[in-house]
Amino acid sequence: MKTFRKELAFNIPRREAYVNITSQVEQALSESGIREGLLLVNSMHITASVFINDDEAGLHSDFETWLETLAPHQPTSRYRHNDTGEENADAHLKRQVMGREAVVAVSQGRLDFGPWEQIFYGEFDGGRRKRVLIKIIG
Amino acid sequence: MKTFRKELAFNIPRREAYVNITSQVEQALSESGIREGLLLVNSMHITASVFINDDEAGLHSDFETWLETLAPHQPTSRYRHNDTGEENADAHLKRQVMGREAVVAVSQGRLDFGPWEQIFYGEFDGGRRKRVLIKIIG
Amino acid sequence: MKTFRKELAFNIPRREAYVNITSQVEQALSESGIREGLLLVNSMHITASVFINDDEAGLHSDFETWLETLAPHQPTSRYRHNDTGEENADAHLKRQVMGREAVVAVSQGRLDFGPWEQIFYGEFDGGRRKRVLIKIIG
Repeated sequence: MKTFRKELAFNIPRREAYVNITSQVEQALSESGIREGLLLVNSMHITASVFINDDEAGLHSDFETWLETLAPHQPTSRYRHNDTGEENADAHLKRQVMGREAVVAVSQGRLDFGPWEQIFYGEFDGGRRKRVLIKIIG
Repeated sequence: MKTFRKELAFNIPRREAYVNITSQVEQALSESGIREGLLLVNSMHITASVFINDDEAGLHSDFETWLETLAPHQPTSRYRHNDTGEENADAHLKRQVMGREAVVAVSQGRLDFGPWEQIFYGEFDGGRRKRVLIKIIG
Repeated sequence: MKTFRKELAFNIPRREAYVNITSQVEQALSESGIREGLLLVNSMHITASVFINDDEAGLHSDFETWLETLAPHQPTSRYRHNDTGEENADAHLKRQVMGREAVVAVSQGRLDFGPWEQIFYGEFDGGRRKRVLIKIIG
């Protein structure tokens, strides 16, 4: 069995954003030389997500509006987590809806994807350096 | 290390449905001959889910009602994704709540499940052909 | 390829609770002797979750309040699942938001985590014996 590990780094100036990282994950898979196995890609931070959905700007705008309805940023005083001096409690909740990680099949050296699957880094508390981990086994 | 890959196909006439695919996944595991490892089962489409929960019709009705509250289909004009000519933005959101994939332990040649765990395909935008991927390594 | 399996058992008196299980998962990893691979940790029950987030009491209080808004326990009659004699339909929904499982990279014999990642067992229907499964391959 072979394993491969790589980190991606982000520093998103906006509080919330969705970044398509599919080509960076494909690059890591190519570097690994692994042809058959499983690939894990996860946010290493708890106010961000890695998820698979559509690369369409209107949908990303819908995600932002929708998550704000489910877990509003304001008023920050509504969250007990923010009593610690943070103001990112909503980001911890949004990340639960969107998920921490994606596990992807690797077949014949490629991400084994359906026609529209793309991998995104979802940032809910930007303005600081954050990382995504890629681990491949096969 | 051994790997095994299989696709399941669906064409659900209703917009929304929950299909128990546990026996099909068990069949794939049996075909693989793998006794110890991990099994990934994921929707290959971004308006559908694979998730693990209870096989109880009342609960599935609750899922449908609840998801409609969280991410209503109507009015379709509330979603920017639908400006592209689609009317399935809500399906992309519902799939985030229910998840894309399940990863299941394989032990002694079986799905290593608790007493009530069952695997479901969740359709949120039916009426077209869709696929589920099973990938097993061990 | 090596595999390792271990169960953790819980019996939470309260209906809802969040238990940090990181050190128990680290202990299992240490017992396994696996240095490179993937670790799956999942709830074996469908009214509980395993998820990764922050070990901060205010945030856990926010989770509880928030999940109660998204999927209220009362009135229990609002859920068709409860027509079966159960009163835990809300727990099945809460578990979908928080997730069933976490998949963690194992690198150099350790959980390959970012600075704040901690693993939690989330109970949404306590008062009975429940289990968590840890499966490691590498």
